[in-house]
Amino acid sequence: MAGVAVGALRPATAQRGMNPDSVGPGKHLPYGVRSRYETTARDYSLSKTPYKMSGSAGTPLQDLHGMITPSPLHFVISHGASPPDFDPKEHRLLIQGMVDRPLIFTLDELKRLPSISRICFVECGANSSYRLSSGRYHDGAGPRTPMETHGRTSCSEWTGVLLSALLREAGMQDGARWLIGEGAEGGWTISIPLEQSAEVMVVYGQNGEAIRPEQGYPLRLICPGFPGDHSVKWLRRVLVSDQPAMSDRDEGQSTLRDDGRNRFFKPEMPPKSVITYPSADQRLSGPGFHEITGVAWSGKGRVSRLEISTDGGRTYQDARLQGPVLPKAHTRFCLDWRWDGSEAMIQSRCTDETGEAQPTIEAMAKVWGATKEEWKENFQTPSLFNPIQPWRINRNGAIENALFL
Amino acid sequence: MAGVAVGALRPATAQRGMNPDSVGPGKHLPYGVRSRYETTARDYSLSKTPYKMSGSAGTPLQDLHGMITPSPLHFVISHGASPPDFDPKEHRLLIQGMVDRPLIFTLDELKRLPSISRICFVECGANSSYRLSSGRYHDGAGPRTPMETHGRTSCSEWTGVLLSALLREAGMQDGARWLIGEGAEGGWTISIPLEQSAEVMVVYGQNGEAIRPEQGYPLRLICPGFPGDHSVKWLRRVLVSDQPAMSDRDEGQSTLRDDGRNRFFKPEMPPKSVITYPSADQRLSGPGFHEITGVAWSGKGRVSRLEISTDGGRTYQDARLQGPVLPKAHTRFCLDWRWDGSEAMIQSRCTDETGEAQPTIEAMAKVWGATKEEWKENFQTPSLFNPIQPWRINRNGAIENALFL
Repeated sequence: MAGVAVGALRPATAQRGMNPDSVGPGKHLPYGVRSRYETTARDYSLSKTPYKMSGSAGTPLQDLHGMITPSPLHFVISHGASPPDFDPKEHRLLIQGMVDRPLIFTLDELKRLPSISRICFVECGANSSYRLSSGRYHDGAGPRTPMETHGRTSCSEWTGVLLSALLREAGMQDGARWLIGEGAEGGWTISIPLEQSAEVMVVYGQNGEAIRPEQGYPLRLICPGFPGDHSVKWLRRVLVSDQPAMSDRDEGQSTLRDDGRNRFFKPEMPPKSVITYPSADQRLSGPGFHEITGVAWSGKGRVSRLEISTDGGRTYQDARLQGPVLPKAHTRFCLDWRWDGSEAMIQSRCTDETGEAQPTIEAMAKVWGATKEEWKENFQTPSLFNPIQPWRINRNGAIENALFL
Repeated sequence: MAGVAVGALRPATAQRGMNPDSVGPGKHLPYGVRSRYETTARDYSLSKTPYKMSGSAGTPLQDLHGMITPSPLHFVISHGASPPDFDPKEHRLLIQGMVDRPLIFTLDELKRLPSISRICFVECGANSSYRLSSGRYHDGAGPRTPMETHGRTSCSEWTGVLLSALLREAGMQDGARWLIGEGAEGGWTISIPLEQSAEVMVVYGQNGEAIRPEQGYPLRLICPGFPGDHSVKWLRRVLVSDQPAMSDRDEGQSTLRDDGRNRFFKPEMPPKSVITYPSADQRLSGPGFHEITGVAWSGKGRVSRLEISTDGGRTYQDARLQGPVLPKAHTRFCLDWRWDGSEAMIQSRCTDETGEAQPTIEAMAKVWGATKEEWKENFQTPSLFNPIQPWRINRNGAIENALFL
């Protein structure tokens, strides 16, 4: 444990480091701001990509605590030029298609209905995929920090109504099989199988207040556990249908069968974890006690176990899980560790309540009929990419991303 | 359930209602802001009081969702002219007094230690006390909204270290009985009995990021369940002693015994709840379905039961508790309700896991040897004031505070 002998307390007089998001020092504001000394921020460096994204930014996981992601730092993947500027009084949600009574709701009407709050993550299906990030960071040298490797996941307390309650009110007709969510983001639609929709929420609240503009204000879907593109932002319509819409997003998740029909692939996000301290681009100040900490999650349920290796995977020990451990939510983990100053390879392995565990990248490549070297060379790994993430700590305390070392 | 026949979706074109806390429309920002249409705010109307407070503001509970209070809307009771502007690099925490090894910690040192995150509330001991609020709202007519009646409570995910771990490292000496926390708020100190300190945290994180300036940046105590003044802000020293400091705050919590010595009164906050919708100053749009919702909490443990009456307390029915139900944390409750358009008196009653329940104001006055009428007349009720809060819904949908009707 740290601590030095007692001495005089130095007065806090420094005035350096203005933070443009704050208005310090010392104002009482009706709606507060952070200290001007706090400057952690999302990174819009992926804004120009081949994936039609106009704005994309990761959550700076390496700077955060606990399980809740502050709303100003929630990750963003945007396909419009900028977030829409909707007046909530004018916004409407339409339920139509194969229903007995098509319905249209104002925000106020939705807020009068039975509400539900749930702490869960939203993660981009391509989060931590090498194809998403590696060519675009550090002149092609690849991602370094947890924000760059795993930042397309965030965890909030979402509040709204269950979509199933709205559908019950509308009265679904026989043969209804698909729910097609449509947002105001360039005609964004995605198709959700009705049989996988029990937990889907229509939300207006995020971490206690209205959802943020970049997260779909004033209304979005939340599909707990599913890839983030299912959680349609700026939601304006849910169409009940006997078939999927075959939108751009749907096509990305289907494969052509031999008989010419499509096989749909609507998976939950697999178990994943990342150590946020110590992690690449940080530097250990010296040997001694350092708590290893990070976040773990699974789209299939609760995190049931988190193991940490400090020797590159030869041996593992169980980390402490910080409660409450909630299904499909970020779970903070911690392990006491004493660094002896020699080179170390630290990595975490998440197992969820279904028994599924994170694979090594080598094991994962084998399943995909590839090699780690091919993936590295082509900046190309699949979606739902969840290999164990190793960080190498060098003797001088410097840390680097060791996934492809 | 609400919902009207389907019609054309109106485009969202309105541009009214600028919000000074936002920079809309449509910017991608590294640190995001809320929509310019969202204007809920804390109320600094109690800023001038006889209690040496220079800034005081309640959380607008009636506008919030779920259990987490957004950090910009956390309640504030401040005894300095403005929040200090501390540079975290210069800040130190000193542990001294009856210890073998006095210690001084930097923020970075504290962050390397075993961390703990916990979702719990902080509530001012005088929250909802009539003496705090009634003479100061609405020209003496008394508090109306849940912010005005109950807003001096907020719930966050706090992250830091257990104070007990720091004390273990310092090595407490025989005879140590009191922990005296000292903050940089006008020499603010408070004395905490060692035997009641097991859960006390030294925190640097709030809802995932650094704690806010008004909440004690960069370091504060959190004493789960105890009145908020125990959770010393801008913490700079913990002194271990065999006796309390008898500071201003301590004196407010002690009574002189016959033998001339003081009896200390260090209570946990009692079970409390407030309905946030429908509540005073709101107006029901008309008869029909309205979900009744609110928050409940207890400084003694978990909320175990929440009952709602719509007939002024003659009959009660159980509300649904929104999970996770955590000890010493806000717990959201909900009840389906259909308003028939007649006058109604709605109120909630919280019972915690110790079996203690909220009393009526009449029962509480009796215990204190007073009457409700005397309390009303003198703008005077005790601290730890937790009576059942009734709201009266009139036939025209208008709602008023019925505590003293």
